[in-house]
Amino acid sequence: MKKALALDVGGTKIYSAIINENGEIISEVEKHSTPKTFDEIENVFRKIIKKHEDNVDVVAFSTCGAVNNQNDGIVGSTGNIAKEYPSMQFKSLSNKPIFVENDANCAAWAEHKIGASKGYADSVMLTLGTGVGGGIIVNNKLLKGKNGAAGEMHFKMYSDKRRKCSCGSWDCFEIYASGNGLRLTAAEMSGNPSITTYDVINGVNNGETMMIDILNRWQEDISNGIIGLANIFDPDCFVLSGSMADFVDTERIETSVNNEIVTTPTKIFKATTGNYSGMIGAALLAFEVNNG
Amino acid sequence: MKKALALDVGGTKIYSAIINENGEIISEVEKHSTPKTFDEIENVFRKIIKKHEDNVDVVAFSTCGAVNNQNDGIVGSTGNIAKEYPSMQFKSLSNKPIFVENDANCAAWAEHKIGASKGYADSVMLTLGTGVGGGIIVNNKLLKGKNGAAGEMHFKMYSDKRRKCSCGSWDCFEIYASGNGLRLTAAEMSGNPSITTYDVINGVNNGETMMIDILNRWQEDISNGIIGLANIFDPDCFVLSGSMADFVDTERIETSVNNEIVTTPTKIFKATTGNYSGMIGAALLAFEVNNG
Repeated sequence: MKKALALDVGGTKIYSAIINENGEIISEVEKHSTPKTFDEIENVFRKIIKKHEDNVDVVAFSTCGAVNNQNDGIVGSTGNIAKEYPSMQFKSLSNKPIFVENDANCAAWAEHKIGASKGYADSVMLTLGTGVGGGIIVNNKLLKGKNGAAGEMHFKMYSDKRRKCSCGSWDCFEIYASGNGLRLTAAEMSGNPSITTYDVINGVNNGETMMIDILNRWQEDISNGIIGLANIFDPDCFVLSGSMADFVDTERIETSVNNEIVTTPTKIFKATTGNYSGMIGAALLAFEVNNG
Repeated sequence: MKKALALDVGGTKIYSAIINENGEIISEVEKHSTPKTFDEIENVFRKIIKKHEDNVDVVAFSTCGAVNNQNDGIVGSTGNIAKEYPSMQFKSLSNKPIFVENDANCAAWAEHKIGASKGYADSVMLTLGTGVGGGIIVNNKLLKGKNGAAGEMHFKMYSDKRRKCSCGSWDCFEIYASGNGLRLTAAEMSGNPSITTYDVINGVNNGETMMIDILNRWQEDISNGIIGLANIFDPDCFVLSGSMADFVDTERIETSVNNEIVTTPTKIFKATTGNYSGMIGAALLAFEVNNG
């Protein structure tokens, strides 16, 4: 059975592990803090790869940032990582085949192959964390677009400029459906600008009406976004992942979405492949390319 | 060169024509009013088909309503046509191969093969008329979704229930970007509930500030919707068709869209295949299937 060295590159951590064709992690997961500079990041990559490349068939990166359609480099700019990172020459890092894909796309692929959306040709994954990531699978393939940047969940929830989004635009799905979105909704509804998501969840657990209303409004925003995506894609299912997905009532959202869409009923699942879904998906994608 | 008998089925008219593999209409276009009942509609289909089927290789329907992934029947309900229409057994209408596809998808395909989006792998067509139709092409294929209903432009522009949409939901792109949308925007901004789209266009042509502001607000709503779609699909281009597309300044929209998206720059074109794009697209799709 083939093996991949998978790396997951985020703004704060770089993870690595060996993964087999079943998507199983067959080594310890190594963790590094993401260094501040391009050169230091490249050195971490080289160190990890040098240690493992002789034992694997392919090196697979799951990375922040949009990845091109050749799966060998970053398109445009990325968030909280060294600003030169997009110029990384991934192919130069190893003599083994190198495969690179966006982390949300990798996670969506992991769910598609061995997780919640396994067996479905058309699915949309939403990663609800500090922000919102997206990975879309159309007819058993990742939706990439002309330059590989597709799947960005920056569509507007309002058209009258209420909340500035991290992307520089206004009122994107991300700034309503994310953890930051819940915090802002809570601040608006409670009148308390320093309220935290923890306060909301804690209040919900204690049965506080205001906090339950806030959580429900946040879930309504998630539903509203999913309604649009369901009408655009007519997908088999949506998969919710990320730390904020824990607080979502998928049955509630599935019911309200299916009540409003003009396409055919869809399903709402929670992700099942866990925190290393990016590495798993990168490895499984890399095997497909290098078997093809 | 192969020939198709193409039919375009809408709520008010049924068109038919013979179309060749270049997408050229090589017969007169015949026009019928769409009858009220299922049986009468079927009789019109049979009459048209009987007259022409011996001279063609395939019969291609461009129809209102979502069409299944087998391209032989309607999914779910359709708008202003006999309510039994979705149960039409298209395959029973001729001994020649029958191909059926949604009219907006057909029009998008016509543009993709011989029109404004020719040569681009990824495009989104928006038909701006009384409502808004959508046809999406991903990697040179129509986006169909699990049951064929994908491409519905019913994603929300607001999340606080301002305008009821024809679909029964609230604040969809359609009810802002359509002709009805322009009329509602004009009524809201002018305070005149009986204002028409003609009044707006006429006022714009006369240089009236209020009417210019109304048209610009309508175009801003179109931009806002396209921004979301551009972030989701990273498409090469958008193609605007339909009667309302005449009033759109594509350069203005292209600039504002590219200023806001997080994906890579896209283009905004007007459609070039004209009023019979549905029949042309249906024929060209049917040839592909029956060559395959």
